[in-house]
Amino acid sequence: MNAAAAVADLISALPEGAVDLDPGTRERCSHDDAEWADFGIPSAVVFASSAEDVAETVRIAARHGLTVVPRGAGTGLSGGANATEGCIVLSLERMTAILRVDVDERYAVVQAGVLNDDLRRHVAEVGLWYPPDPASQSISTIGGNIATNAGGICCVKYGVTRDYVLALTVVLADGRIARVGRTTAKGVTGYDLTSLFVGSEGTLAIVVEATLKLLPLGGREERAIVGYFRSLTDAGRAVAAVSSAGIIPSALELIDRTCLDAVAAWQGWALPEGASALLLAKVDEPGARGEELARRIAEAFATAGGSQIERATDPDEIARLFSARRLAYPALERLGPVLTEDVCVPRGAVPEMLARIERTAADEDVVIANIAHAGDGNLHPLIIAPEGDDEAMRRAKRAFDRIVDDCRALGGTVTGEHGVGLLKLPGAAEELSPVVLDLHSSIKQALDPQGILNPGKAFPNGA
Amino acid sequence: MNAAAAVADLISALPEGAVDLDPGTRERCSHDDAEWADFGIPSAVVFASSAEDVAETVRIAARHGLTVVPRGAGTGLSGGANATEGCIVLSLERMTAILRVDVDERYAVVQAGVLNDDLRRHVAEVGLWYPPDPASQSISTIGGNIATNAGGICCVKYGVTRDYVLALTVVLADGRIARVGRTTAKGVTGYDLTSLFVGSEGTLAIVVEATLKLLPLGGREERAIVGYFRSLTDAGRAVAAVSSAGIIPSALELIDRTCLDAVAAWQGWALPEGASALLLAKVDEPGARGEELARRIAEAFATAGGSQIERATDPDEIARLFSARRLAYPALERLGPVLTEDVCVPRGAVPEMLARIERTAADEDVVIANIAHAGDGNLHPLIIAPEGDDEAMRRAKRAFDRIVDDCRALGGTVTGEHGVGLLKLPGAAEELSPVVLDLHSSIKQALDPQGILNPGKAFPNGA
Repeated sequence: MNAAAAVADLISALPEGAVDLDPGTRERCSHDDAEWADFGIPSAVVFASSAEDVAETVRIAARHGLTVVPRGAGTGLSGGANATEGCIVLSLERMTAILRVDVDERYAVVQAGVLNDDLRRHVAEVGLWYPPDPASQSISTIGGNIATNAGGICCVKYGVTRDYVLALTVVLADGRIARVGRTTAKGVTGYDLTSLFVGSEGTLAIVVEATLKLLPLGGREERAIVGYFRSLTDAGRAVAAVSSAGIIPSALELIDRTCLDAVAAWQGWALPEGASALLLAKVDEPGARGEELARRIAEAFATAGGSQIERATDPDEIARLFSARRLAYPALERLGPVLTEDVCVPRGAVPEMLARIERTAADEDVVIANIAHAGDGNLHPLIIAPEGDDEAMRRAKRAFDRIVDDCRALGGTVTGEHGVGLLKLPGAAEELSPVVLDLHSSIKQALDPQGILNPGKAFPNGA
Repeated sequence: MNAAAAVADLISALPEGAVDLDPGTRERCSHDDAEWADFGIPSAVVFASSAEDVAETVRIAARHGLTVVPRGAGTGLSGGANATEGCIVLSLERMTAILRVDVDERYAVVQAGVLNDDLRRHVAEVGLWYPPDPASQSISTIGGNIATNAGGICCVKYGVTRDYVLALTVVLADGRIARVGRTTAKGVTGYDLTSLFVGSEGTLAIVVEATLKLLPLGGREERAIVGYFRSLTDAGRAVAAVSSAGIIPSALELIDRTCLDAVAAWQGWALPEGASALLLAKVDEPGARGEELARRIAEAFATAGGSQIERATDPDEIARLFSARRLAYPALERLGPVLTEDVCVPRGAVPEMLARIERTAADEDVVIANIAHAGDGNLHPLIIAPEGDDEAMRRAKRAFDRIVDDCRALGGTVTGEHGVGLLKLPGAAEELSPVVLDLHSSIKQALDPQGILNPGKAFPNGA
């Protein structure tokens, strides 16, 4: 490994301004939003403008034995974009072109650095819709969404990022450019390399361009239904009742008391006495059918003991009802650094999982607030530790590990939508059997024998 | 390779009756329904009853250097289950247990040999639905559906087999058993090995058990809309009009004149004069919304020049309207051996693709009838050659190749839902770039270094 020689080669091979050695830039690009995970400082940050820039960077890094850590907007929460000391951070944030929108065939071709919301807005102008809606949608890139197979609120009904990726252009570990997938609605020619690359966190290849399936924008009408519950068990019963009624809502979110308190204290709201949780649902079927589903969800809420049940169809009113969800994260960040958990359990295990998280918070003496995509069992316990309190941070990390253990005990998976990155490596080691870990190592070895692409992420690689 | 010793080991290691050496059985299990593709006669057919039987068979085959060709019901149309001479055919048809249906979490755990329709009926009893509906649904196995990532009629709206596979238990090339995937609604722990195995035609691992996502059965109401068109272009305009109206039907099938003539001649029907194609659509939204969509589809058909447009909501009446679709294949088989094509082009290219197929039929002097999943651009040209006419069979094969070339020229993929098997190896060699073929070989080599699992299928492996 010869970082200086590699940097010199990069500077001479790449367009002017592509290689940034500024200490501030290297610091800024040294990690994603998982500041609790380890990271080093890169030798250089390359801002690629084209697939060829990416390929050239990978070739040069490979020649000098440097590792390459790809990076979108750095909004990840698991450390998947955290730099290794002396690596090349390869930023795709300048690759923001929306190359093509095919209205008739309903797909878009975009560079990896396009922001999720920018794509959404762009295709809406021609009556199309890109459903995946991670909470970071206004600041995260499509490439990052693909690297982590990002979820979001509407995926309970509309699926996750992988369900919308038809084809990818990637740069391989040897610098070759490969195009995998198809643009047709169906296709089974060869292995599904597209799905393999989605969610692989840049450890098998670097995504430079994606062909994304779109849906018609029209034909939907949003209706919101919200209600408070005196216990997490009651809220869990409401979720189960919606599900067993055969209703698939377009959103079904839960916010617990700790979270509500933080929002209420910030916004000066009064909460209903004895409320332990708020459920927020949406349906989007148009007309009488949507009306019927909204009514049935409201009934399910009421039967499960819900109170202050409200319904809305006006977009502003829907936004008001969902404001607690929107304000939850910033409200909690006011209390201290937030360690964001991401576990997914069977839908029916959500109340038990929340009860266990409550016990963990008490036992470890940390504040844990909960936002949950209740409709698909995906919980985001938010563990808060006061700034600068090292002992509290240790307790927070213990709580994090205990939540992962409890999730596994309830038949869950250690990451629902944020990715393994670095933070979930111990959890992944528990979840994936030795033979499945061997499969991971074999595939990594086959596609990146030098181990230069984002080493140490996505799965525990003992090799 | 020592077939006799391998067979002796299989007989002593496996339960009584598992190893079948009968020439009739070996002949029956030597190929799937792609009789036009090459096949050899296996040394033995193993009828596995458990994952352990499969693992033992693979281990013994590996020890003796024999290849293993896994087999479901043998209803494939690309030769994916065709035996290599002297191999072990490993049949999963006795593994028919539906192990578990979790009503609350909406998934089923089944062995690979369960018939698609048996699963459908079983879960319907508890109000759940398994959507993937290949035409072979009454005779094909879930394991075979997974091996080929089977499509079907409703996948234009509901997706293909891969979209319903949450987890798999597979036997690897070294005989180890691996469980990949999850049972939760979401999950991103590690690489998506589940999607990689789906559609890999038994070349990377043998699927013995699958956890399948289910949908609520209720909440849908079928409405059918059919209409005749004077030209394929008119029919294509109708399909485009439905799509650009933002309607996603639950079925949108096209049957061409040649096909209609065969059905009409068989059934004694009279066809409308000058009809070149029949379009058959379904929507399944309940109530007023479904009624509105059916009306708009009927209008789109009329605007594009459709005639004799009929609508139905009664299930028997729907079945009557769709009877031409159901009878098409048997009607054509009466005319001679059918070589079933399977190409997928952009939706908008369907009329041009059909026109090219018409020219090919004329140029090569063969009968080609067309069934198409028009809503997703997936065409099934059915090439008919009179029994025993070798020259006609040669012309049929030339027509087959030309259709593949035309599909590629129009931006399509050489197999939409039947798989590469053997028949689409030349097409796959055209479609997949050298670097993508290298990726295939690398992954095959990593997971099956001895090359014993279904060799020579799924992709052209030059190695």
